Amino acid sequence: MSVIDAERDAMRRAFELALGGPRGENPQVGAVLLSATGEVLAEGWHRGAGTAHAEVDALSKLPAGAARGATAVVTLEPCNHTGRTGPCAVALIEAGIARVVYAVADPGDASSGGGERLRAAGVDVVGGVLEEDGIRLLESWLTVQRLQRPHVTVKWAQSLDGRAAASDGTSQWITGPEARADVHLRRADADAIIAGTGTVLADDPALTARRPDGTLYEHQPRPVVLGTRAVPQEAALRRHPRPFMQDEGEDLPDLLDRLRQLGAHRVFVEGGPTIASAFLRAGLVDEVLVYLAPTLLGGDRLAVGDLGIPTISAQRRLDVRAIERLGDDLLVVATPKEAP
Amino acid sequence: MSVIDAERDAMRRAFELALGGPRGENPQVGAVLLSATGEVLAEGWHRGAGTAHAEVDALSKLPAGAARGATAVVTLEPCNHTGRTGPCAVALIEAGIARVVYAVADPGDASSGGGERLRAAGVDVVGGVLEEDGIRLLESWLTVQRLQRPHVTVKWAQSLDGRAAASDGTSQWITGPEARADVHLRRADADAIIAGTGTVLADDPALTARRPDGTLYEHQPRPVVLGTRAVPQEAALRRHPRPFMQDEGEDLPDLLDRLRQLGAHRVFVEGGPTIASAFLRAGLVDEVLVYLAPTLLGGDRLAVGDLGIPTISAQRRLDVRAIERLGDDLLVVATPKEAP
Ligand SMILES: NC(=O)c1ccc[n+]([C@@H]2O[C@H](COP(=O)([O-])OP(=O)(O)OC[C@H]3O[C@@H](n4cnc5c(N)ncnc54)[C@H](OP(=O)(O)O)[C@@H]3O)[C@@H](O)[C@H]2O)c1
Ligand SMILES: NC(=O)c1ccc[n+]([C@@H]2O[C@H](COP(=O)([O-])OP(=O)(O)OC[C@H]3O[C@@H](n4cnc5c(N)ncnc54)[C@H](OP(=O)(O)O)[C@@H]3O)[C@@H](O)[C@H]2O)c1
Repeated sequence: MSVIDAERDAMRRAFELALGGPRGENPQVGAVLLSATGEVLAEGWHRGAGTAHAEVDALSKLPAGAARGATAVVTLEPCNHTGRTGPCAVALIEAGIARVVYAVADPGDASSGGGERLRAAGVDVVGGVLEEDGIRLLESWLTVQRLQRPHVTVKWAQSLDGRAAASDGTSQWITGPEARADVHLRRADADAIIAGTGTVLADDPALTARRPDGTLYEHQPRPVVLGTRAVPQEAALRRHPRPFMQDEGEDLPDLLDRLRQLGAHRVFVEGGPTIASAFLRAGLVDEVLVYLAPTLLGGDRLAVGDLGIPTISAQRRLDVRAIERLGDDLLVVATPKEAP
Repeated sequence: MSVIDAERDAMRRAFELALGGPRGENPQVGAVLLSATGEVLAEGWHRGAGTAHAEVDALSKLPAGAARGATAVVTLEPCNHTGRTGPCAVALIEAGIARVVYAVADPGDASSGGGERLRAAGVDVVGGVLEEDGIRLLESWLTVQRLQRPHVTVKWAQSLDGRAAASDGTSQWITGPEARADVHLRRADADAIIAGTGTVLADDPALTARRPDGTLYEHQPRPVVLGTRAVPQEAALRRHPRPFMQDEGEDLPDLLDRLRQLGAHRVFVEGGPTIASAFLRAGLVDEVLVYLAPTLLGGDRLAVGDLGIPTISAQRRLDVRAIERLGDDLLVVATPKEAP
């Protein structure tokens, strides 16, 4: 096997190792150290904020000096940043690493530049190896880096005329089983699920992600309740496999920041109307999921309330990403249009 | 040419003749009289309520006795009804017609039974010849017979969240040029177009059916304004090629009945929200066209107001007939679900 092939194999192994670490505030990173002839010397991965980075974890498994002349294969460009741990670039240089191969460039303002620093120290550096797989692995973390907060999806179900319930507040069911199954599948892809006290008190939702047969998906988003009113002792939410977090909801950017620190990359806002409108008004929405039922309700139970839009030129245009028919219902997936 | 072939040719000619009469309260009907050997003896068509029916019109072109033993080829089953004219079945029997061939059976309660009456008098009767073409020709009239009123389409444009305008009333443009072109094309297919005084005063619509280049389609629906407020002297509506009709709009079934008597088979209700809601509330809607723009507006300018629906079990379910993407917009074509 050529050295190049050995490096690609090591990168695939590093992707696997990366998954051993938690999805969270820090990226999932894996590293493999190879001898100059392509033998695996050591493996490492990052176990979360405050612990050793993957490269340093791998180096720590070798006796001093044993990495001299070796190649480090890492899923993410080694950092150049002194945080709770020192810069990995420096650790690699000090260990005498001769060559560094990575998949994805570090997008961070403070942490990037590791590749340059290594090159300046005479290390042979190659980036972009199996880059697409690396990006897929880090996708949600990269989004968080770009947005500087978790990715926010706001979902609601409405009648064709934009109502979330009939005049007396009844809303079960506007949409059909296919639409509801789709919601649960998407919940299972989120790290946190947000509902207001209005919804918790009116509908007593479990906020779990369930299969059509009622069993729980393996991954459950952390439930978050917004509002000052108390969650009743007998609320279904209290039987959620993960304890819920409650927040006044007065400072949504701060809330998202705290969720990010708790490791949330993807937040699913399930409403109700007041909470959905608050996120929209604050411009904190990256994706909108509207489940449209073929029905008319009229009345004043609107799916979206006031958005503070005074005139048509201030409308919030969306790009429609997908339209799906789910049974009798329609799902419109849309993202806010970038300001021109 | 066989006699059967001659009859089919005569039926095609009768369809053409039918179109010489007006689309209106009465059906468009054409008739051709053939000799026993298949030669055309005379042609006729119906010129509208109060005038001779097609068969009688054709008979009137022959000297007395000349139709004896002939075949009458008619697009609609000869009537058995004494209205402003006598029953055609009787006229045909008295003229000594030996055979009657028709395309579409008469669906009218009072007028049907002509075929039977002819048979009872010994006339050879064959129905259903080129029936599909006949049904296509009479489609909108047959709908009026079934509904006992014109077919009503209610159209509105809205943001995804169900608003027809921003808070200050501005609404140009929520939907794009493709959606607007589609509206004009559908207007051109209607016999009457209805708007409320609210819309006339706010938007000064021309209520014409125009091509994208601004020129008028050949057929223009009759404009109808609902409401008590006066249409301004300088309103664009006053330059419509057909004079508009104004009505208080207090009795919508009666209004539709008067429009039917004026020959309207298809009525296009363009709103605004108050008028659209009034038609929906009254259960007088056969088709809903919702042009959905990918935008959020919030606020209180709803595309549909109160529909008198107290609770979810009373929701107005629709059957989605078609979903079309028109530029950035979405058109949902739906019909009210039949009560189970
Ligand atoms: N169609 C759908 O998709 C859907 C989804 C969910 C719910 N629903 C329906 O919606 C209804 C409940 O509506 P809702 O609007 O009252 O529920 P909600 O949006 O779940 O809760 C609103 C409450 O959230 C709290 N809150 C926290 N942060 C807030 C902020 N930044 N801005 C405003 N309020 C904040 C306030 O409660 P405190 O007073 O406690 O602070 C507020 O009253 C129910 O009828 C339910 O069935 C429909
Ligand atoms: N998005 C869309 O598709 C669309 C379409 C049209 C208009 N619009 C917008 O809608 C707004 C106008 O809304 P609108 O609701 O005032 O207009 P509207 O529905 O056109 O007119 C309402 C008026 O119709 C009269 N009327 C006649 N028969 C009635 C009945 N049976 N029930 C109730 N009212 C009856 C009343 O006027 P009198 O007091 O004169 O009797 C009433 O005030 C404008 O901002 C316009 O831009 C939007």
